[in-house]
Order: sequence, then structure tokens, then C-alpha cells
Amino acid sequence: MIEGSRIRSESGEEDDTLGAPATTRRSFKSLILCFRLYFITCFSKYGDFHTIDWQRDLARDRIRHKSVAARRKDFPFGTLFAMWDAGSGWACVLMVGLAAGAIAGIIDIGARWMSDLKDGICADRFWLDREHCCWSANDSNYKDDDCSAWISWPKIFDYDNKDFFYRTLELFFYCSWSVLMAGLTVLLVKVFAPYACGSGIPEIKCILSGFVIRGYLGKWTFIIKSVGLILASASGLNLGKEGPMVHLACCIGNIFSYLFPKYGHNEAKKREILSASAAAGVSVAFGAPIGGVLFSLEEASYYFPLKTMWRSFFCALIAGIILRIMNPFGSDQTSLFHVDYSMKWTFVELIPFGGLGVFGGVIGSFFIWANLKWCRLRKSNRLLGSNPVYEVLIVTFITAFVSFFNPYTRKSSSSLIKQLFDRCGPKDYMSDLCDYQNKTFTWDKSAFIQLIFALIVKLLLTIFTFGIKVPSGLFVPSLAMGAIAGRLLGITVEGFVTTLQSSGIHNSMWSCEVGKNCVMPGLYAMVGAAAVLGGVTRMTVSLVVIMFELTGSLEFIVPTMVAVMFAKWVGDAIYRMGIYDSHIDLNGYPFLDNKGEYPYSTLAVQVMKPGAGNSLSNLRNLRVITQDSMTVGELELLLRETDYNGFPVVVSEENYSLVGFCTRRDIQVALHSARRTQPYVVTNSVVYFSNSVPEERGGSPAPLRLRKLIDLAPMTVTDQTPMETVIDMFRKLGLRQVLVTHSGRLLGIITKKDVLHFMKRAE
Amino acid sequence: MIEGSRIRSESGEEDDTLGAPATTRRSFKSLILCFRLYFITCFSKYGDFHTIDWQRDLARDRIRHKSVAARRKDFPFGTLFAMWDAGSGWACVLMVGLAAGAIAGIIDIGARWMSDLKDGICADRFWLDREHCCWSANDSNYKDDDCSAWISWPKIFDYDNKDFFYRTLELFFYCSWSVLMAGLTVLLVKVFAPYACGSGIPEIKCILSGFVIRGYLGKWTFIIKSVGLILASASGLNLGKEGPMVHLACCIGNIFSYLFPKYGHNEAKKREILSASAAAGVSVAFGAPIGGVLFSLEEASYYFPLKTMWRSFFCALIAGIILRIMNPFGSDQTSLFHVDYSMKWTFVELIPFGGLGVFGGVIGSFFIWANLKWCRLRKSNRLLGSNPVYEVLIVTFITAFVSFFNPYTRKSSSSLIKQLFDRCGPKDYMSDLCDYQNKTFTWDKSAFIQLIFALIVKLLLTIFTFGIKVPSGLFVPSLAMGAIAGRLLGITVEGFVTTLQSSGIHNSMWSCEVGKNCVMPGLYAMVGAAAVLGGVTRMTVSLVVIMFELTGSLEFIVPTMVAVMFAKWVGDAIYRMGIYDSHIDLNGYPFLDNKGEYPYSTLAVQVMKPGAGNSLSNLRNLRVITQDSMTVGELELLLRETDYNGFPVVVSEENYSLVGFCTRRDIQVALHSARRTQPYVVTNSVVYFSNSVPEERGGSPAPLRLRKLIDLAPMTVTDQTPMETVIDMFRKLGLRQVLVTHSGRLLGIITKKDVLHFMKRAE
Repeated sequence: MIEGSRIRSESGEEDDTLGAPATTRRSFKSLILCFRLYFITCFSKYGDFHTIDWQRDLARDRIRHKSVAARRKDFPFGTLFAMWDAGSGWACVLMVGLAAGAIAGIIDIGARWMSDLKDGICADRFWLDREHCCWSANDSNYKDDDCSAWISWPKIFDYDNKDFFYRTLELFFYCSWSVLMAGLTVLLVKVFAPYACGSGIPEIKCILSGFVIRGYLGKWTFIIKSVGLILASASGLNLGKEGPMVHLACCIGNIFSYLFPKYGHNEAKKREILSASAAAGVSVAFGAPIGGVLFSLEEASYYFPLKTMWRSFFCALIAGIILRIMNPFGSDQTSLFHVDYSMKWTFVELIPFGGLGVFGGVIGSFFIWANLKWCRLRKSNRLLGSNPVYEVLIVTFITAFVSFFNPYTRKSSSSLIKQLFDRCGPKDYMSDLCDYQNKTFTWDKSAFIQLIFALIVKLLLTIFTFGIKVPSGLFVPSLAMGAIAGRLLGITVEGFVTTLQSSGIHNSMWSCEVGKNCVMPGLYAMVGAAAVLGGVTRMTVSLVVIMFELTGSLEFIVPTMVAVMFAKWVGDAIYRMGIYDSHIDLNGYPFLDNKGEYPYSTLAVQVMKPGAGNSLSNLRNLRVITQDSMTVGELELLLRETDYNGFPVVVSEENYSLVGFCTRRDIQVALHSARRTQPYVVTNSVVYFSNSVPEERGGSPAPLRLRKLIDLAPMTVTDQTPMETVIDMFRKLGLRQVLVTHSGRLLGIITKKDVLHFMKRAE
Repeated sequence: MIEGSRIRSESGEEDDTLGAPATTRRSFKSLILCFRLYFITCFSKYGDFHTIDWQRDLARDRIRHKSVAARRKDFPFGTLFAMWDAGSGWACVLMVGLAAGAIAGIIDIGARWMSDLKDGICADRFWLDREHCCWSANDSNYKDDDCSAWISWPKIFDYDNKDFFYRTLELFFYCSWSVLMAGLTVLLVKVFAPYACGSGIPEIKCILSGFVIRGYLGKWTFIIKSVGLILASASGLNLGKEGPMVHLACCIGNIFSYLFPKYGHNEAKKREILSASAAAGVSVAFGAPIGGVLFSLEEASYYFPLKTMWRSFFCALIAGIILRIMNPFGSDQTSLFHVDYSMKWTFVELIPFGGLGVFGGVIGSFFIWANLKWCRLRKSNRLLGSNPVYEVLIVTFITAFVSFFNPYTRKSSSSLIKQLFDRCGPKDYMSDLCDYQNKTFTWDKSAFIQLIFALIVKLLLTIFTFGIKVPSGLFVPSLAMGAIAGRLLGITVEGFVTTLQSSGIHNSMWSCEVGKNCVMPGLYAMVGAAAVLGGVTRMTVSLVVIMFELTGSLEFIVPTMVAVMFAKWVGDAIYRMGIYDSHIDLNGYPFLDNKGEYPYSTLAVQVMKPGAGNSLSNLRNLRVITQDSMTVGELELLLRETDYNGFPVVVSEENYSLVGFCTRRDIQVALHSARRTQPYVVTNSVVYFSNSVPEERGGSPAPLRLRKLIDLAPMTVTDQTPMETVIDMFRKLGLRQVLVTHSGRLLGIITKKDVLHFMKRAE
């Protein structure tokens, strides 16, 4: 827009600064000023918590591209530079992918090791976690990861009698290690990088939609969040490290983008890299490259051209490969919760699967509602809000204490999920979960009761955990809750069908062998996991694809889809927003959702500032710049009095015909620069934004020409435009503001903030 | 836009038609007229080969949605209707999925049976194809689908001596069956549905981008294309039935959408169903639901909101499940070319894989170039253009004759691909392709030489086949060419490494056993297939995902990606457009690509019609309507003299301040209706598009009020707007035209056609 005129002046077609010979020297200075301004604008930065102007940034990138293309012919440097420029996007995402994969591997290994330190240590090789310790010890038969090489803490003190005192000692070590880890984390976060807490996905969504939060993707946030994530995982809190991986990957993307000025110095272009990074984050979190791309497309990103999709895929794939090469889980499987048996299901089972979806929607909505209540309380209550460290310590202690006594809450969420997804297997290697198949089964200490307990505990703890000041994700806790619920339902259905079959009612639908090729509780666990995660996040396609890549099984894609669909529908009916959107709302970020449809009957004239009414007094509230009658002093006063990001330029106080738009920053820089370098510019100098500068007269001070600053093509709508169209323009074109006119006369202005206010009010 | 004012008048906030008491009756009539107009507009149709106005259609849908939402409270009918309305999109895609799966199954079965009739017939059960015939016959050992139950045509005549005469007889039956089938197809297409020819994907792309081609998705096209596809596949021409499946699925989507007025009567909304249908088409063609969604997103669709993505996924999945239940291939495998062995590759092999990518790009570009040359010749040459039937017959005869003598060109492309993807296997069941492993191997009749021959023949034949007047896809022929090339390279590399190993140069990279766990020619065939298809269509992410779903193997996703990337880069460097875009270009469809970036330095003023220059004579060329001074006769003259789709409304001949925009259709309907129902409207009646109608005087004829027709919120840009921004607005907002203003004065108009012309010129 504004660049349009610059290009023309550069190519010499028109240059009004080189007008009258008398002012040549001054004009030359003005030209230099303009060039300086150009460079400043090229590298201009947005203020903290401001929204970027996509159109302007993309226009800037086009100019850069043109200048590179023009030099392409200059062999060899121009050609090489052009090639480098064309390939830099790929180079950048390659580096991001490599780094994201490596970091994810390190975090996985570190978290496992430190997490197992709660219980004990590896005797021979202290740097091994429990699983690898037992592997390397080569114990022929160990069960549930218990082997001779692994020494629990009480054992260190030669106390090997498993009585009450042993248990108490074990509990003591467990709790103190947890509290120590959590305390360390929260201190690190509080002191070094306050942005490192939480999952980061709500903020990433806002950033990708064009919001600027300085330091949120910086190196300190990255370092502290990485370390904190390892410590927090080790603390045994109900949190996942998958969500924060997305944040970490975006930090990496942001840091690497500064190596490539094309991306680092252009906020709109940088977001292309960040979108790819978000995909890589999900890819390493779940080993799901395609799911990562779809997550970035469906949930995270705002501006997602196809070129970015292709790069995201590349980035996600590279990150996934690196993680696989590092192999932090010590298994050769492609997917995190790999299922190596076929899952058969009958069409009747879609009813319980749908039921799981409904459950997921209900529990997800309850979770969001309760978590938001608690977060609001934290914001409003001084005692709670000002003592995040104590809150973390208390939550951690309660979590550790409560979780200790139940085998399913005690083990890490991911190994719990793995176990829940598994089938019962033959008698000798039967999992605890299948105790109901034993003859000696009693209800009171059964896995069923313990699972119900675990589900309630996990739900309550997660509500209080998500939002405390440690890095904490939500994916794995949700999956775990859902997997427990699903397994419970699966066991129930299995019992029901077994009873049905043994009671002699032979039905062709249930002719299969229960637990072998139909009614597999493991499948119910998977579907339940997807349903609850769907209920909490309201993701759809990407969730199905992630679940499919997570388990490596294409066969249960239909059950998952049914459950996720029901979860989404029921969830949306109960609580309108997903957890991320709710947190965006809670924090008041200016996020313009690009999904929903809003059937309003409002017109632009009813939303614009200042309000409707053509009276002159009303228009006075609209701060404008006139094109050829304001003085430097008046302009400076305007800048001091207001904090708008820009001002419309009109013909005169009497004639509000719109000429263009001028940003605050440009005027500020120009005035400051003129005051410093052009001594003839005084407070009374008239500033000309128009072409026609009158001949200088003796008495009056020299004029200042700032025509180049105006954007001559601001986005305008008429006053009768329906708000849906205005919102559509804001969304699709990434505008910051739009000017409202009536037959060319300026009436008002609608900013992104006005649109958001309006949408909130309309609800 | 125009609806904005309508809503207000419906809600009673403002109604200018009920102004003066003297004109009440007339006004009432005018009100009825307006309501009529409203309904007409609601169901308005676009002319053939016109572009739809997305903003207007979506606005219409919002009004419909509002009216449904308003009735939601009226229990029970309003509530039920609202629920039905909300669910109708899902119901529609469900039906489309079911139908697409069923049709695909029928076509697959039919094509196989008729294709095998070229060679012979099943003795016991004539309705079985060769494979099922041999299965049902239960011959214990048959090789290459040859069994006692299957009787070749010469055998019917009791001639079983495999001498020259037998071969000639076989050839005769082969060729005549082929020519018969092709002749039938082309006659059907020519007589009943000329739109049924070709792959249909270029046209689908245009339709999805907002172009209207009447009958292209109609029932006749659907029926003839289905039948023609079976016949054409049986003719043995080098064509695939996968591309046309997309067209067929879109036909189904179009036909079913008429059951749901929400979609059937709104072209913009209908395209949501069509996008989902396209995904279902790819899903059934390849058994790749996720790939289908990504194909729809990357290649086919233009307007793809997330809601549509979710529905597309559902639709693709349903279609895939139905096809699997029908099981036309008689195998239990999920994927078409299922690979049931693991594919290991080393990093060094990425070099030959990249080489395959380069080959794919080169051969793809050559193919596009040659095919376009031939198609242009067909268009310009009268002899060729007017005799499509002879062309088809000649091409078919040559294809049949040439293909007969080579085992790899003779068998169907898909079974050839299956064989090429396969590994060599143990000695006894070794495929012909692995003859070089035999001791008795000689070069002159080897599979290697025959494959080279097959590659050349297939390439040449496909160039002449794609574009003839039969339903013909391009996916499978491209895959076949690529698979042959890949297998050839794989065999070469295998030989090279074997030589290297046997010559004693031991290298850790090649420590694996060649052909078993490294250098697998089958993997090279897969990569080659993806590379050539990538070179021809320039698809990226969706192609990788389709290949992955096609083979069910996640392991070779990296080699495929490398090859597809190189194919895209090299291809784009040689020939800028993919085959579909080239054919769109060839046919001159108004398709505004939403991918490329165009760094122009042009402003809107340089592109608009009439050309720049503010002189009054120039503005005269701009046909406008004045808001309160034109008569009915002048308007009718304007409509007769021009064929524009709409006219800007300005204040007066002297004051070109923009008031709004009015479509040709609306004026036409209103004038016609007024002439018929309002006898006081005469040729001299002044038409008022403004609010302020002067008091009626005695002498002058009664005025006609058409204020409700104006769209008071037309999209405008200033004359200084760079064309990139204008193009961006056209793309993202789906505009039909944009008005160019300067300080509110109308200067000109830019239509979609102007934009396309400009982009073509700029190249």
C-alpha cells in the first residue's frame, strides 16, 4: 500500500521531492530522510501486545522479493543470493526440525530418569531409568518393571522389610522428591522466565493470529521451559509434556528465524516458520507428523498458505526422524502407544463408542468450567494470586500423597495409557487390569474399583494443576482420564456380553469370542482417550489423525471418529469453547477466531468509533490529520494526546474526503528525524501530506513534506456494510483497522479491538 | 450486502416504501414486489460459464440461517426444523459417501470383468473375471492367473496349439474387443453427454473456485461417465479410472445437494458439499481417506473452511468403508497396493531417490508439454478436431496392437504397478521381473529390456490418450510409468551394489543383504511412481499421504518426500504449470489460482476499466446508473446495449460519488415485474434508487422505487491500491468485481476477468 508510491518514486516515474530548484538541497535531505524511513519501516517492530498488520508486512516482503528478483541476473552474487533467498525457508525449517527433534529426545530421556528417581535408583548405572536399568540388568523374569538392579530408596538404607515403616519411608521419599522438583521448577519459572509456565498453546494461537508478545518465544523462555518441563514431569504432577513441546518448538522456530532476515524481520513471514514449528512440536510430542501438520492447520494456525503446509510437513517429518533416531523410549516402534494386534469391532459397538463420546463431551466441559472457575479465583483472590510458589507446593504435595496409594495414579500417565490400551494377553503375563478374569477375583480390591478412584483423583487434580506456574500440558492427562473411563466401559460391556452369551441367548452379532476378536477393552480405552481429549480441546480431524498415528492402527479410525464427533457436539452444546479458547478469553488476548460463523444483523455504522451520527461534534471525536493544514506542533500535540496506532488523513477540517492513512510510528519517526536534521523545521511549519505544496513566502516557516508516509490505499467499507462482511475482511485479509466511509467521506474507524468487543457484546 | 438493508426493513426499523399516504397502495405493491424479488434472489441462478459471487451467496445463507434460528424456539416444528437444518450437511455428505463407495465398487468390478473379456471367458461362471474365476475353480497350482477354468478366445474354437495362428487369433480378438469398447464409449459420450470425457479434474477445480458449468455435474454426465469408464477401462487404453472417480463423486455430491435446498440453491454452499465429494472420490479411487481430504484441500478446493474439512473427512471415510465392504478386489487388504513387508533403506539411497525425483520432474514436464501441443493441434486442426470418434478408434487400435506383444504393456496398469512394487520372493514363486537372478539369464529377452520398451510405449501412448473424448484419468498411467522407471533404477543400483560387494570393497553402508533389507527394487518402483505423478500433477503433501495410504507403509515416507520434492522443484523450473492448470489454461477457464505469489508493481488504476485518466470522455465509457435521474426507458436501453453483470450506482452524471452497486439480474427482474404489474410505470417514469423521492407532480409519470435493489456496501479500493492487494481480495473474499474510487468518486471497475487478463499479461 504505502510501498506502492515508494516503488514508483524509486523507479523515477514520479518524484515530488525534487520539485522547485530553490529547495533542491532541502529536498535532497528529504530524500535521504525518506530512504532512512524506508529502511526503518522495513525493519519496523510492533509494540508489545500489539497486533500485526498482515497486509502491510506481506507487502513489505513482496518489495524485498522484487529487489532480490531484480538482482537475480547479476552473476554470480545476485544469482547465488536469489538462490539462497529462495531456499532459506527450507533451510530454516530444516534446522527447526533437527533442533526440535533433538530437544524432545533430551527432554524425554531426562524426564524419565528424574521421574524414576522418585522411587529409587539404578544400582550399577545410576544414569539409567528404571526400564533401561532392568533391561541392562538382564533379569530373566521381572514383572511390572521391578528387578534386582533397581533399588528403591528404603532399600538403600538396608531396610527391605515391606511393612508399614517401609511404606512410610517410601512415601516420604516420594513426596519430598516431588515437592523438591516442583519447587525448583516454580522458582526457576518465577525468577527467570514467567512466560515459561502453562502449556503455551493459547498464547501460540494468539501469536500465530498476529499478536505480538515480546519474550514469549525467546531464548530464556525456551531454556527455562525445557529444564522446567523435565523437573515438572519428575514431580509427578498431573501434567503432560506434549503441549509445552509445541511451545518449545515455536521458541526454536522464533530463534532460528533471526538467522534469516526474510523471516526474522517480518512478523507476518515469521509466522510461516512458527506454523511449521508448531507442527514439528506435535510431531515430536506424539510421533505424529501428519497429525502435527493438521493440528497446526486446524487448531494453531491462522494464516496457512499451502507453501507453509508443505514446509510444515517437512519440518514435522525431520523432527520425527531425529526423535526416532535418538529413540528415547528404547523401543523400535514408530508410534508412542503402538498397538501390535488387530482390533475388530462390530457395528453394534458404535453405541457404546458414541456413549464414550458423550461422556468425553460432558467431562471435558466440566473440566473446562471448573478449571476456569479456579483460574478466575486465582486472578481475583489476592492470597492465591500472589503466592504461586505455595500453590504449586501444596498441589504437588497433595498430588504425591494421594497418588502414592493407587497403582494407577502412581505410575506415569503415559505408561498407564500404554497399559490401558493393551489387551489382556495369556494367563501368565496377564496385566493387573484383567484380574476379573481370575477365579480368585474379589470386588473390593479389584482393578475396577481402583480405576474409578484413579479417574476421580486425576480429574480433580488436573483441574487444579492446569494453570499453576509450572510448564504443564493437558494432552496426556486428558488421554489418561479418557483411557481409564474407556477401559471401565469396555470391561462392563465385556461382562455384559459374556453374561448374554452364557445365558444362552445366541446372537449372530456376538458370535465372536469376547476379548479376543470383539469387545476389546483396550479399544474402548483408545476411543475413550480420544473422546475426552476431544471434549477438552474440541479438536476433530487432527485428533483422529493423531490418535491413528499414535497407535499405528488404521482399523479403529471409525470408532474414534464417532466418539470425537459426539464429544465435539455434546461439548459445544454444554460449554461453547475449548480449553484453549477459554484461556485466551480468560487472559483477554485479542484473538479473532477464524472458525465460527456469526449471524449478526448489525451494520458497520453501528460498530465504528466514533458512534453513528453525522453531526460535526461527533466527528470531532474522530482524530484525523488534514492533508495540508496541520503544523508540526499540532501533529506533536496529536501524538501526545492520543495513543492510537494511526490516523486517517482527510482533505481538510471541512471536507472529510478520505485521502489515506498514516501510522503513528511513521509520523513519530519522521517528525523526530526532521527536528534533528532539518533546522528550518519549526513548530509552526505546515506539514504537507499532499502533492501540491504552495510556493514559499517570506514570512512563513518552511514546510515539511511527508507525502511518502501516507498509505494511499487504506481498506475502506461503506457505513452500510454488514458486520459479517467486515469480520470476514478482518479475518481473511488480516487487517488491523478498516475505515468507514459514506460516499467517500470518512465517518469513522473500526479496529480489530472494536470487532472483538462487538463480537463479545453480541454473544 | 444488499441483504443488510432488507433485514432492517423486515425488522421494521426502516421502511421507506411506506412513506406518503397517497402512495400507500402502490407502495404495498412495491413491498410485495420486493418480497418476490427477495425470493427470486434467494433462489437466483447464475448463467452458464459465469462466476459466482461468494460474498453475496454466503450473505444469503446467513439470512437463511437467521430465519431458521429465529424459529428455533417454536416447539416442536421450529425446533425440529432447526435440528434438521443443522444436520442436513452431515446427512448430505453421508449419502454422498455411501453412493460414491457403492458406485466405485460397481465400476471396479465391471471394469475388471470387461477388461478380462479381451482375453477370454470363465467357463463355469461367465460373470467372473479371470482372478475370481481361477479362485473359484480351485486349481491348486496356477501361475500368472492362468488356469483351466479360464478359457481364452482361441480355445473356444478348439484351437489349442500355441503357434503363430493361435497368436494371430488372440491378437484379433484382443484388438477388436478393445476397438469395440472404445468405439462404444466415444459414441455414448458424443451422443449423450459431451462433458463426460476426460478426467474432469481441471473443470472440478474451476467449479470449486466458483465457476458455473451447467450440466457438468448433472445426472447424464454421471451415468454416461460411469458406463463409459467401465468400457474405456476394458478397451485397454492407457488411462486410469481414478481421476474420473473424483468427477463422478462430485456429480453425486451435486445431485444429492438438490435434496437439501440449503446447499442445492446456494452455489457457494454447494461447493462445500462438492469439496467433500472430491475427497470421497480420491478416497474410493485409492482407498486413501486422509489423502483424499488433503487432495481436496491442496489441489481441488478453493474455499475450504474447517467445517468442510471435517465433513470431507467423514465423507471420505464412509465412502472408503463402503468400498471395503463391497471388496471389489477380492482381497482383505486396506490399501490398493498393499505392501506386507518392511522396507529398509539407507541414507545413501536418498541420492538415487532424489535422482528419481529429477527424472519425474523432467518426464512430467515433457509429458505436459507434449500433451498440450497435441491438444492445441486438435483444437486448431479441423480434420483432427471434427473427428473425435476416428481419433479414439485409431489410438485404441494402435494401443491394442502395440501393447499386445509386451507382457508389461498388455496387463492392466494397476496389476503392473502391484507387480513392480513387489519384492522378488523365493526362487519358486519368483516374479518374471527378477529373471536377472537366474543363472540362465540373457539380456535380449530380459524383463529389463522389455520394461524399457514398456516405459517408452506407455509414455507415448499416454500423451495421445489424455484428452481424447473418452473418460480418462492420469493417475494410474503416471504411477505405472514411474514404477517402471523406478524398478529399472532399482535393478541397476542393486546390480551395482552387488558388484561392489563381490569385488571385495566392504563398506559399512552396504553391509546389508542386497534385495533383502537394502536396495529393494520394489521400493524404488514406489518412489519412482510418486516422483512421476508428482512431476505431472505437481501435488506435494497430498501425494505423499496418498502414496503412504496406498501402500500402507509408513517407512518409506522420507524417500517419497525427497522424490516428490525434487520432482516439484525440477518440474516447476522446466514447465511452470501442472497438467491440470495447463488444461485449465488451454480451455481458457477463468481460474484464479490461490497458490502463487505475484510480485507486480502495478496499481489498481492501471488495470481498471475504463483506463486511467480522469477526463469526462473517459468516464463516459464507464456505464453507470444515476440514483435519481434515469428513466425506465434509459435503464432498459442500458440493459440492451451492454452485457455487464452489474452497474455501479452514482449520485448523478456530474457527481460520480459512489452510492452502491446493482446487478443486471435484479434490475431486469424488477423492471419486467413493474411493467407487468404496475400499469402506471411507463417508459418515462423516473427510477429512484435513493431514499428521497420528490412529491409527485401532476404532469410527470409516477416514479418507480428500486432502492432495495442496491447493494449499499460494494467492495471498493482506491486507485493507488497495488494489484497484489486487489488480487488478494479477489482470492480470499471471492469477489466478482471491485470498484475503484478516488476520494469517494468512482473511477472504474475491476472484474475477475480483468484480473485474470492482467495476470496473464504480466507473465
